[in-house]
Amino acid sequence: MDLPFDGAISRYFKEAAPKEVRKTIEKASKDEILWKDYPYREELKKSDYKTQMEALQVQLVRMAADIKATGKRMVVVFEGRDAAGKGGAIAAAHENLNPRVAGIVALPKPTDREAAQWYFQRYVDWLPAAGEIAFFDRSWYNRGIVEHVFGFCTPEQRAKFFRQLPEFERMLVDEGIILIKLWLEVGQAEQLQRFLDREQDPLKQWKLSQIDIDGLAKWNEYTAAIDETFAQSHFKYAPWTVILSDDKLRTRLCVIQNILQSVDYKGKDPNVIGKIDEKICGGPKKRQID
Amino acid sequence: MDLPFDGAISRYFKEAAPKEVRKTIEKASKDEILWKDYPYREELKKSDYKTQMEALQVQLVRMAADIKATGKRMVVVFEGRDAAGKGGAIAAAHENLNPRVAGIVALPKPTDREAAQWYFQRYVDWLPAAGEIAFFDRSWYNRGIVEHVFGFCTPEQRAKFFRQLPEFERMLVDEGIILIKLWLEVGQAEQLQRFLDREQDPLKQWKLSQIDIDGLAKWNEYTAAIDETFAQSHFKYAPWTVILSDDKLRTRLCVIQNILQSVDYKGKDPNVIGKIDEKICGGPKKRQID
Amino acid sequence: MDLPFDGAISRYFKEAAPKEVRKTIEKASKDEILWKDYPYREELKKSDYKTQMEALQVQLVRMAADIKATGKRMVVVFEGRDAAGKGGAIAAAHENLNPRVAGIVALPKPTDREAAQWYFQRYVDWLPAAGEIAFFDRSWYNRGIVEHVFGFCTPEQRAKFFRQLPEFERMLVDEGIILIKLWLEVGQAEQLQRFLDREQDPLKQWKLSQIDIDGLAKWNEYTAAIDETFAQSHFKYAPWTVILSDDKLRTRLCVIQNILQSVDYKGKDPNVIGKIDEKICGGPKKRQID
Amino acid sequence: MDLPFDGAISRYFKEAAPKEVRKTIEKASKDEILWKDYPYREELKKSDYKTQMEALQVQLVRMAADIKATGKRMVVVFEGRDAAGKGGAIAAAHENLNPRVAGIVALPKPTDREAAQWYFQRYVDWLPAAGEIAFFDRSWYNRGIVEHVFGFCTPEQRAKFFRQLPEFERMLVDEGIILIKLWLEVGQAEQLQRFLDREQDPLKQWKLSQIDIDGLAKWNEYTAAIDETFAQSHFKYAPWTVILSDDKLRTRLCVIQNILQSVDYKGKDPNVIGKIDEKICGGPKKRQID
Ligand SMILES: Nc1ncnc2c1ncn2[C@@H]1O[C@H](COP(=O)(O)OP(=O)(O)O)[C@@H](O)[C@H]1O
Ligand SMILES: Nc1ncnc2c1ncn2[C@@H]1O[C@H](COP(=O)(O)OP(=O)(O)O)[C@@H](O)[C@H]1O
Ligand SMILES: Nc1ncnc2c1ncn2[C@@H]1O[C@H](COP(=O)(O)OP(=O)(O)O)[C@@H](O)[C@H]1O
Ligand SMILES: Nc1ncnc2c1ncn2[C@@H]1O[C@H](COP(=O)(O)O)[C@@H](O)[C@H]1O
Repeated sequence: MDLPFDGAISRYFKEAAPKEVRKTIEKASKDEILWKDYPYREELKKSDYKTQMEALQVQLVRMAADIKATGKRMVVVFEGRDAAGKGGAIAAAHENLNPRVAGIVALPKPTDREAAQWYFQRYVDWLPAAGEIAFFDRSWYNRGIVEHVFGFCTPEQRAKFFRQLPEFERMLVDEGIILIKLWLEVGQAEQLQRFLDREQDPLKQWKLSQIDIDGLAKWNEYTAAIDETFAQSHFKYAPWTVILSDDKLRTRLCVIQNILQSVDYKGKDPNVIGKIDEKICGGPKKRQID
Repeated sequence: MDLPFDGAISRYFKEAAPKEVRKTIEKASKDEILWKDYPYREELKKSDYKTQMEALQVQLVRMAADIKATGKRMVVVFEGRDAAGKGGAIAAAHENLNPRVAGIVALPKPTDREAAQWYFQRYVDWLPAAGEIAFFDRSWYNRGIVEHVFGFCTPEQRAKFFRQLPEFERMLVDEGIILIKLWLEVGQAEQLQRFLDREQDPLKQWKLSQIDIDGLAKWNEYTAAIDETFAQSHFKYAPWTVILSDDKLRTRLCVIQNILQSVDYKGKDPNVIGKIDEKICGGPKKRQID
Repeated sequence: MDLPFDGAISRYFKEAAPKEVRKTIEKASKDEILWKDYPYREELKKSDYKTQMEALQVQLVRMAADIKATGKRMVVVFEGRDAAGKGGAIAAAHENLNPRVAGIVALPKPTDREAAQWYFQRYVDWLPAAGEIAFFDRSWYNRGIVEHVFGFCTPEQRAKFFRQLPEFERMLVDEGIILIKLWLEVGQAEQLQRFLDREQDPLKQWKLSQIDIDGLAKWNEYTAAIDETFAQSHFKYAPWTVILSDDKLRTRLCVIQNILQSVDYKGKDPNVIGKIDEKICGGPKKRQID
Repeated sequence: MDLPFDGAISRYFKEAAPKEVRKTIEKASKDEILWKDYPYREELKKSDYKTQMEALQVQLVRMAADIKATGKRMVVVFEGRDAAGKGGAIAAAHENLNPRVAGIVALPKPTDREAAQWYFQRYVDWLPAAGEIAFFDRSWYNRGIVEHVFGFCTPEQRAKFFRQLPEFERMLVDEGIILIKLWLEVGQAEQLQRFLDREQDPLKQWKLSQIDIDGLAKWNEYTAAIDETFAQSHFKYAPWTVILSDDKLRTRLCVIQNILQSVDYKGKDPNVIGKIDEKICGGPKKRQID
C-alpha cells in the first residue's frame, strides 16, 4: 500500500525537522528513550509492567464496582500533544471495566450546529451520571490548544473559554464529580518517531490526520498555547497532573495510579497501588523537567 | 364525561379553600379581576388587546429575523405558579415565529438517568445555538420551587442548586446569551378560578395534573419557596421581571414588550413597543404589590 | 420592510405565471374560490366553521385521552404542495391536545450524516410510542416529490425509495400503528394567491423559502411527480385520502373528521363527527376533480 | 473479595448441572476442548493464531479504509449464547479500526419509552451511515431468544417480530447495507466452564449478570428458542453463518475471515484471508454438528 499522505511524515523528518531532533532519532538504539532529560534512559521492562499492571487492574475493577455501588461520578480528562499516548493509556485503564460503568468520550470536531452553541455544551452532554466514569480522550481544552494553534477559534472565543473555564470546572467539582486532569508530555523527537512508526505501520496509518502532519511544523506554537493554557487552568479545586510520557509503559501505570489515588473505594489497597513515580509525575512544573 | 380527578378541584373549592378565597370567587362578576390589590379592576378589552398585539407581533417577527441573521441567542425563562398563564403567554410570543428559529422547551420530569446527572445537564442540552430563541416553559427553577415543595429533591440538592445557580447563569450571560427571566404572579383566587374552569372545560381537562391538585393545599409552602428562590436568584446580570398576571391579556402584551426591549434588532420601533405598564410589571418587589 | 426575496413572487405573478392563472387571480373577488372545478364557489362561513370545529375539538380531546389510556399509536402524514394548508390543518388538530400525547414532526432537510443513512432512518426516530400521536408535517414522501423535482436525490435513490415504501408502511401497519395519509390538493391559482399574501404579510414572510420561489415554475413537474408517487403508494393497508383544499376551513374540518373516523375511542360520537364531505374528500382519483 | 452472586455459578456446578456436563468439566485437562463433537481436540496454538491474525488485521484495515472511501455500509450481527465469545470476537475485529469508521453497538435493555415503541426502532437508530461499519453485540434477535426465554416479551410480540423480520432485513439488504449475521455456538460444558472462570476472576466478575445465572438452568429452553429463531430467519438474502466456538482463537480468525469474504475492497488478498475452516463454520445445520 502507498504511504499515507504521500509520505509527508518521512519528508518532514528528512527535510524540515529541527536538526537535533533528526539526529536524536537517527542515532538512537531500539528501546532507548529519546528525550535526553527524561529521568530514565531505558523503557520499563515488559515483564515488570505486566506484573504491576495486573495488580492495578484488580484495583481498577474494584474502584469501578464501588463507583457503581455508591453512585459516585468520575471524569478523567486525557490531554497531551498528538501521539503522546492518550489512546493507549485510556485503553489500558478501560480494558477490564464494565462498559456500562466506564465510557470513552472522543468527540469529533464540532458540527456546524455545535459550533454555534455554547462551547461547553456538547461536553456537558457526556458528563457521567451517578455510578459512571467518563474517560475524555481530548476535551474542552481543545479550544485552549489545537483550535488556537490552527485558527479554528477566534482569540475572542478563546478568551471567553478561559474566562468561563474556572467556573465551569468549579461547578463540576462542586457537583461532586471527581475531576482528574492528566497531561501526557511527550518529547519532540519521540513524537516524531511515533509518527514515523505510524506512517510505516499498515495497522496504524489511519491514526494519522492532516492535523498531525500540519502540526509537525508548529511545535513551538503548541508549546506557547500549552503554557498559556496551564497558566489559566491549574486550579486548586481542579489541578493538572503532568506525566512525562516518552516511556509508554511507565505512563500507563502512572495514569492508573493517579486515578486510583483520587478516590476511596471498597477494597482499596495502597500497597498494591504503590507510590507514584515522582520522577515522571508531578504538577505543571514537571513539563519543564526539573 | 366524568369530571377529571373525581372533581377534586371543586371539592377543594367547597371544602378546603380559605374562606376569603372562596368568597372572592363566589361573589365576582364575569370579567372582574379577583385579586383585590391588582392595579386594574377589569380585564383589558379584547379589541384593545388585538390592536396592540398585532403591532407587537410584527416587531417580534423582525426581532426573530434579526436574531437569525446576526446569530444572536436568546433564552426566555417563563416561571410562575401553576395556571399563572405561562403556556398562553408562550403561545402568544411564539405564534408567528419561524419554528426553526424559536423553539419551546417544556421538559418532562427527569428520567432516572437524568436524575443521576448534573442537575443543569438536561437544560444545557436545549440552550439555543446562534440564531435561535428558546422559550423555557418552566426551567431549572423547578428545583427551587416545585421539587422542594413536593419533596422531589433533598435539601442538600436544593442547596447545591442555589450554590451553582449564580455561576451557571453568569456563564450563560458571559457566553453572550440574552437571558430573560419572567415571573408570572397570579393571585390565589384567580388560580383556583382557573383550575375550576379547567375542570369543567372538556378541552382543557388534560391540563390538570395531580401536582396541581395536591399543590392547592400548599399555597403557603409555595410562597415560602418562591421567596427563598427570589432571594437567591435576582442577579444584576440576570434579574427577574415580575408580571402581575391576573389579567391574561395584559400579561401577554407585557411579556412580549419585555422580550422586545431586551434586544436591539433591525426595524425596532420603540413607539410600537410602547411603554411597559409599571403597574403590573417590575422587579421582585412587585410580587408584594406596592 | 423590504419585500422578501426581492419580490420574486409578485414578479413571477406579473411576468411568468400562466395567463389563465393570473387572470383568475386578478378578476376574483374576496372570499371567492379560485379553482373553477372546486365543488363550492364560496368559502365556508366562519360561524359555521366555529360551531362545527368546537364540537370536533371535544372529540379530538377524547380520542387523544383514549389513545393515551389504551396505549394506541397514531401517525398522521400531512402531504400536499407548498401552501396547501398543511401547517394550518395540523395546528387546528393539535391545538387542544396534550403536547405530551400529540407531537408535530417537521424535520429540516437532512444533515450530511443523515443523507448518508438509510432514507427512512430519521423518520423512524420520530415514530410514536404507545399512547402517542405523531403529526408529520411533510414526511418520507419528500423523496418521491420535492427531492425529485429539485434533483436532491438521484433517480436510483427514488427508485429504491419506491421499492422499500410498501414494506416500510406495511411494517408500520402490522406493528399496530394507525397510519393516516392525507393529501391536501390546492389549485394553482390559489397556491399563487397564498404566496402573494405571504409575500405581503410581515407576519408570514418567513414562511417563504427559496424552494417555494423556485417551485413556482415547476408546477407541471410537481404534478408528474405527484402522479407517480400516488401510483406507487396507494396501498390497501395504507391508502391515501385526498382533500381538495382551496377552502382552508372546509379542509380543516375534513382533516379532523378523517382522523376521528379512523380510530375507536371512548366517548366517540358519530353524530358529532358527522359525514365527511365527499365533494371535497376521497381517494387518489379526487385529485382530478370528478 | 467475595464471590459475586454468592457463588451461584459454582453452586449450580456442584448441585444442579447435568451430570455429564459436570463430569466433562471435572476430568478435562487444561487446553482440552470440552465439547466432544467439536472437530478439534486441542485449542489452536497461540503462535499460529498470532501469525494468522496479524495478516488478517492488515486486511481488515484495508477493508475499513475502502468502506470509508467508497461509502459502503456494513452491519455485522454477533449472536450466540451467553459466554459464546461475542465480546472477544468483536474486540478482535475492532481493535485496529478507526473508531470513526467502525463502532460497537451494545444496547442496554430497553427503557420504558423504547419498550413502548416499534421494536426495531432503537436498532434502526444505530444503523451505519455511508462509510461506516456497525458491530452489533447482540441485536434485534434478543426478542426471538433471551426475551422469549425470560418472558420479557409476550408470545404476540414475538410472533409480530418474526413476521416483520423478513421485511426488515430485506429492506436493509435492498438499501445496500452489507448484512452479516454470525452465530457463535458454544457447548454446554464450555459455557459453564467460562462462567466458572468469570466467577473466580476478579477482572471478569462484572461480566456475570443475573440473566447469566438464571439462564444456566434454561439451556433447553434456549435451545428451543434458538431453533425456532433459525427456522424463521435464515433468509437467502440474509443468511446465518454458524461458527462452532469452543475454541476462542479459531472463532476469532473465522469471524474475521467471514467479514472479509463478504465484501470487495482495494487491496483484498484472498491468499491472506485464506480458506474458511468448514469444520467449524457453515450454515444453520452446523449447529447440530455434522
Ligand atoms: N475544524 C476544526 N474545528 C475545531 N476542532 C477541530 C477541527 N479540526 C480538527 N479539530 C480537532 O482537533 C483535534 C485533533 O484532530 P485530529 O488529529 O484529526 O484527531 P485525533 O488526534 O483525535 O486523531 C481533534 O480533537 C479534532 O476534533
Ligand atoms: N417526581 C418529580 N420529580 C421532579 N419534578 C417533577 C416530578 N413530578 C413532577 N415534576 C415537575 O413538576 C412540574 C409540575 O408538574 P405538572 O403540574 O405535572 O406539569 P405542568 O404544570 O407542566 O403541566 C413539572 O415541571 C414537572 O416536571
Ligand atoms: N427486562 C428485560 N427486557 C428485555 N431485555 C432484557 C431485559 N433484561 C435483560 N435483557 C437483555 O438480555 C440480554 C442479556 O442480558 P445480560 O446477561 O445482563 O447482558 P450481557 O450478556 O450483554 O452482559 C441483554 O441484551 C439485555 O439487554
Ligand atoms: N437540499 C435538500 N435536500 C433534501 N430535501 C430538501 C433540501 N432542501 C429542502 N428540502 C426539503 O424540501 C422541503 C421544502 O423546503 P422548504 O420550502 O425550504 O421548507 C422540506 O421538506 C425540505 O426539508
